Amino acid sequence: MNNFTFYAPTCFVFGKDTEMETGSYVKRFGGSKVLIHYGGGSVIRSGLLDRVKKSLEQENIAYVELGGVKPNPRSGLVYEGIELGRKEQIDFILAVGGGSTIDSAKAIAAGIPYDGDFWDYYEGKRVEEALPIGTILTIAAAGSEGSPDSVITHENGMLKRGASGDALRPKFSVLNPALTQTLSPYQTACGITDIIAHLYERYLTKTKEVEVTDRLIEALLLTMAHEGPRVIEDPDNYEARANIMWAGMMAHNNACGVGRTQDWASHDIEHELSALYDCAHGAGLAVVMPAVFTYNMHHDVMRFAQAAVRVWGCQMDFACPENTAKAGIEALRQFLISIGMPKNFGELGAKEEDIEKMAHTGCFGGAREGTLGGFVSLDQKDVENIYRLML
Amino acid sequence: MNNFTFYAPTCFVFGKDTEMETGSYVKRFGGSKVLIHYGGGSVIRSGLLDRVKKSLEQENIAYVELGGVKPNPRSGLVYEGIELGRKEQIDFILAVGGGSTIDSAKAIAAGIPYDGDFWDYYEGKRVEEALPIGTILTIAAAGSEGSPDSVITHENGMLKRGASGDALRPKFSVLNPALTQTLSPYQTACGITDIIAHLYERYLTKTKEVEVTDRLIEALLLTMAHEGPRVIEDPDNYEARANIMWAGMMAHNNACGVGRTQDWASHDIEHELSALYDCAHGAGLAVVMPAVFTYNMHHDVMRFAQAAVRVWGCQMDFACPENTAKAGIEALRQFLISIGMPKNFGELGAKEEDIEKMAHTGCFGGAREGTLGGFVSLDQKDVENIYRLML
Repeated sequence: MNNFTFYAPTCFVFGKDTEMETGSYVKRFGGSKVLIHYGGGSVIRSGLLDRVKKSLEQENIAYVELGGVKPNPRSGLVYEGIELGRKEQIDFILAVGGGSTIDSAKAIAAGIPYDGDFWDYYEGKRVEEALPIGTILTIAAAGSEGSPDSVITHENGMLKRGASGDALRPKFSVLNPALTQTLSPYQTACGITDIIAHLYERYLTKTKEVEVTDRLIEALLLTMAHEGPRVIEDPDNYEARANIMWAGMMAHNNACGVGRTQDWASHDIEHELSALYDCAHGAGLAVVMPAVFTYNMHHDVMRFAQAAVRVWGCQMDFACPENTAKAGIEALRQFLISIGMPKNFGELGAKEEDIEKMAHTGCFGGAREGTLGGFVSLDQKDVENIYRLML
Repeated sequence: MNNFTFYAPTCFVFGKDTEMETGSYVKRFGGSKVLIHYGGGSVIRSGLLDRVKKSLEQENIAYVELGGVKPNPRSGLVYEGIELGRKEQIDFILAVGGGSTIDSAKAIAAGIPYDGDFWDYYEGKRVEEALPIGTILTIAAAGSEGSPDSVITHENGMLKRGASGDALRPKFSVLNPALTQTLSPYQTACGITDIIAHLYERYLTKTKEVEVTDRLIEALLLTMAHEGPRVIEDPDNYEARANIMWAGMMAHNNACGVGRTQDWASHDIEHELSALYDCAHGAGLAVVMPAVFTYNMHHDVMRFAQAAVRVWGCQMDFACPENTAKAGIEALRQFLISIGMPKNFGELGAKEEDIEKMAHTGCFGGAREGTLGGFVSLDQKDVENIYRLML
């Protein structure tokens, strides 16, 4: 196991009606004037935004609002939020929504106290300072509610890039599984796929003898395999949604990813798709993952065989472990299709003629230096080949 | 899943040579004058204490020392530490040792700013304020390095009781698996047993549909089943010790125990043994667990069958799940014996004639009101019956 530090000081407030406690947690973590950041109409229509405001008012906490976050959140709104936050002398950012809203809120929180362009952080500068952030999560997916990460798309060049730093970990996150019951099956399935991807990105490692984190990742994958179909079949199943919500946080707060190299090739390859076609990140991952895994499988057959046996219930083929490895990837693919995810470029709305461009941006865009992936180092030609597997 | 809050803001510094960073972490978390608390000669002989002091000196941090913590730490030294800490105007407590040292340090940290008797906290008062604590862990076992808990034995009546509160979570914990390589096989096995017990105490729940935490607990049990024998066979196996060390922390920081009722009958029943006979806590648990589980098994046969199949690799007996449940408990018992743990009262040095007294203290001592156990409520007669199963 590699040396590491792990610091995850987010306070999770989990369960029914917990959004009513928002005000007291903002107060506990020092907020006196809040920027409430959110997306579109659903948090308004559902009454969630009103409940959050009421909770703030009960604690005499002032607030201003900035809505309009879109999926694959953009830099434009971040600049707007930074300007608003400075003008209004905001001291706390509250995200009400999913991963896009939280990531946008994190960018604003980092940008307000920073002298330079917030995008510096998305070009590789570590975030050491940010305003405190709280979240009220409305979809189990990105894991941003417990992570030090944020992903933003810059409108200049449509570069989709991530920033990181412990200062971006929320002070508190309200996780009420009931808030996710109004999601469409498609949105729910996208979230499930994103969580599964966060687990595989950590599972695919070059580090040997990491049984404890292997087992933890497998535990969360088993949870998703069990609870995913239940919640797609019955969207009102609170218990299934609760299990998925905690798994989604645990999948990405990195407790199961410490001390090992990680991959992140699937995410990097997907980001080009959602940046270009504005498809849902989870839907993109559903198409990307089986292709990446098939392409990389020969690099460590036993690792894929282990996942196949321990997670997907495949029989081990002791004469030919490669068969088991393949069966595990196919089981994942069929699982993703079964919950309603797309299976190829066509269903995603992606086009063959963009492959070369996407592979080039993926490998060279922003601060990249020609390769991506921590499990297998992939160059532009590899990435093109992987995109072609998705046709 | 039940509503819960989870707040685990300890910074873990994991890996080889990480004790050399102690000073910088004390500084980061605001310490300027430290009480270094430790046990006996091993941390001196190994040079660990000197390395820690050197690291403090490099950051110009002043310190005083208080050694002498014994296994099953006592109230006497806690009172001494509180007095010393007040006199020396200590602002940070640094524990160098195992669970006993850390628990004693936590008691001192809570006692220094408290007007009353620190023992109030061990009679049920929640700890809301304590001096900041750091730990350098020397055995994977108690999980106190990442938990909000502390267990102390009061010399007046030899009552062994626990206190709890987020203020008792260490600010940072240094986890260097190499520091555990000098432990005897017996000490190592006691630690392994304690970790397994922390997992079973959470596994045994009355809460339904808690797949995610079930799976996480099973993942950590599988890790212990795999790594335990490896480290007993080869005490210098750094990788096995690293996996056990992270599993030990994860087993008790409660990420895998949230949103569900827990048991803790085995711990409460064991505490009477170690309080009376001063046996190692892990050794006591090895004798107690199979007895408690056998006694409680009929309450939820399927839960024990699930552990048997998923953790211990037993075949499911679909015609008679009780056989599978029993096989799982027997597999656990044989595992504990295989790593060198005692199997009955005689090997533990416990005496049949003390059973009634222990059962009475366990059920009525301190603030208890006649029963113990969250999975099955056990009264004095039940506890006596359980002790008799250990003869």
